[in-house]
Amino acid sequence: MSILNVELDTRSYPIHIDQGLLTSSSLISQHIRGKRVCIVSNTVVQPLYLEQLKASLSDFDVDQVILPDGESEKSLSNFDTIMSHLLSGAHGRDTTLIALGGGVIGDITGFAAACYQRGIDFVQVPTTLLSQVDSSVGGKTAVNHPLGKNMIGAFYQPTSVFIDIDTLKTLPIREFNAGIAEVIKYGILGDYDFFVWLEENIDAIKANDPQVLSRMIERCCELKAQIVSEDEKEGGVRALLNLGHTFGHAIEAEQGYGKWLHGEAVATGMVLAAKLAVELNIIQTSDLRRIEALIGAFDLPLVAPADMGFEEFMRHMKRDKKNLAGKLRFIVPTKIGHSEIRDDITEEQLKNIL
Amino acid sequence: MSILNVELDTRSYPIHIDQGLLTSSSLISQHIRGKRVCIVSNTVVQPLYLEQLKASLSDFDVDQVILPDGESEKSLSNFDTIMSHLLSGAHGRDTTLIALGGGVIGDITGFAAACYQRGIDFVQVPTTLLSQVDSSVGGKTAVNHPLGKNMIGAFYQPTSVFIDIDTLKTLPIREFNAGIAEVIKYGILGDYDFFVWLEENIDAIKANDPQVLSRMIERCCELKAQIVSEDEKEGGVRALLNLGHTFGHAIEAEQGYGKWLHGEAVATGMVLAAKLAVELNIIQTSDLRRIEALIGAFDLPLVAPADMGFEEFMRHMKRDKKNLAGKLRFIVPTKIGHSEIRDDITEEQLKNIL
Repeated sequence: MSILNVELDTRSYPIHIDQGLLTSSSLISQHIRGKRVCIVSNTVVQPLYLEQLKASLSDFDVDQVILPDGESEKSLSNFDTIMSHLLSGAHGRDTTLIALGGGVIGDITGFAAACYQRGIDFVQVPTTLLSQVDSSVGGKTAVNHPLGKNMIGAFYQPTSVFIDIDTLKTLPIREFNAGIAEVIKYGILGDYDFFVWLEENIDAIKANDPQVLSRMIERCCELKAQIVSEDEKEGGVRALLNLGHTFGHAIEAEQGYGKWLHGEAVATGMVLAAKLAVELNIIQTSDLRRIEALIGAFDLPLVAPADMGFEEFMRHMKRDKKNLAGKLRFIVPTKIGHSEIRDDITEEQLKNIL
Repeated sequence: MSILNVELDTRSYPIHIDQGLLTSSSLISQHIRGKRVCIVSNTVVQPLYLEQLKASLSDFDVDQVILPDGESEKSLSNFDTIMSHLLSGAHGRDTTLIALGGGVIGDITGFAAACYQRGIDFVQVPTTLLSQVDSSVGGKTAVNHPLGKNMIGAFYQPTSVFIDIDTLKTLPIREFNAGIAEVIKYGILGDYDFFVWLEENIDAIKANDPQVLSRMIERCCELKAQIVSEDEKEGGVRALLNLGHTFGHAIEAEQGYGKWLHGEAVATGMVLAAKLAVELNIIQTSDLRRIEALIGAFDLPLVAPADMGFEEFMRHMKRDKKNLAGKLRFIVPTKIGHSEIRDDITEEQLKNIL
């Protein structure tokens, strides 16, 4: 088993990565204070893993909230559902919430834990590749608002994260590939060697080789943990993790959440960011081609939806919460393995690539 | 002008106390980063002070959300109203929220600031005595849930607090007295000399003497700031601030929020806490009498509603978020100027006083 530590003073926590973690009762139990637990999951994950997890928690008084599946469920209304459930079950400040599912479940459960009685413990058990390499680490929690994604939320760290590689066996291929988009992101923004390693291991990754997946997820978590430790609340370097996200969020918002998976939109967003870098003359075209090739190898989209041009992108991007004082902000790669934050991009330059 | 500092590392902030602060534009402006401000207030405070405050903010792009008045408005639904307003106005992370009003406005605005895009600046301009001496200091923010008060919230500190004594001139006498309940609380829980000073200044306080009010509010904020600096998230000593609140919240919940003012319920709660201390033989009966006398001098209720007995109190108190592992928790005074946390109170002892 790999154990990584996210260093955040009193809020530091371990990330465990291995096969078979869900059924390892003593390990999970060690990381729960108190006697009561409430698992939050969804209707897709419940039949697959809920009973396994509950069996590992036989020492605890275990309760559950099962939400419908989908990005549209990451709502203030379902947040209220969790609150009502906890209150009617007379849960106190010593209850631990466990998020069993993908990014939607992790984000809404984390936000619920942040706000219930002003904060209770929560544990992340991410079951999708996307949530294992991205959303379960770093403490960004949120729900969506009809006017924008992740607009209501908090920075709130879990007390521990358990990444069970075995859960990837049941993940639909399209979702697996969407998760790979975020994996590739780490290579582009900060680790050339990892990017090369990914290029060399495309087949092993697609074949679900547990050793390769384990190493891949570990490296992503390591990179994320390092960035989050340096900059928990995104005052600086953490913004780099948004590579591809400004364009990506615009695609998701324009298409309606759920049509494009988040990772798919980020994949296209990264290609657009690299094209912007070419337009700015700060990256070699050969790097753009390698980025496109690796993303394409996982059947991820390389171009924006046909009905989205400059106007459609701008409408959504102007509302992006990464913008400051009305200026648009972009993360652009300068080479594979290095990116920077730019807020001096002109509309002209955007028009040329969109 | 008095300036107190709440010491919380990077989240430290000043509390300004004086007459005429609302019209002192340069002072408030200094404490706002960015160019945009959104004032949250209610229909009662708006006609009294909104234009004054806006005139002081002429350098900023000022927006506003006006909520109906009352404790029942401290809801997730109005929280959503603020979020929608901010999003449709395309407010970014550099907008500052200003809470102009009493505790309800301060609490919901603070929670909105904590959650909007995972946290933006907010400034407290409390206009009631209760909020000036209690809720505007310390960073407890929340909304109510039908199943419990302040159950959804966050610890989130303002960037500064402006207490304008002049706003007390328009405060209804019943609300003023309710605020005095929290003032008396500070004397009972931690400052004998202040309790004596209050006994000696009853008439001056009732006459709204600005010097006396200023000194009184300053001492309360000082005591609260000190406790909050020691224990921001209520792991220990901060719990003392809940003196009278376990009984008080039960009264508010049973009567329906708004019938009894919060301060009135806390007044009776403090008398019950002192009676419990007499029952436990840890306080002199003469201290109970002095507490009753000072509370009574401000026309505050000394006994629980006639229809509330042991059963009614227990039903609500069992749900109190201060309880841990099913044990009821009470703050009880051992003498005027000193209190302690007890979680060993028996049902028998409670029956004797309720």
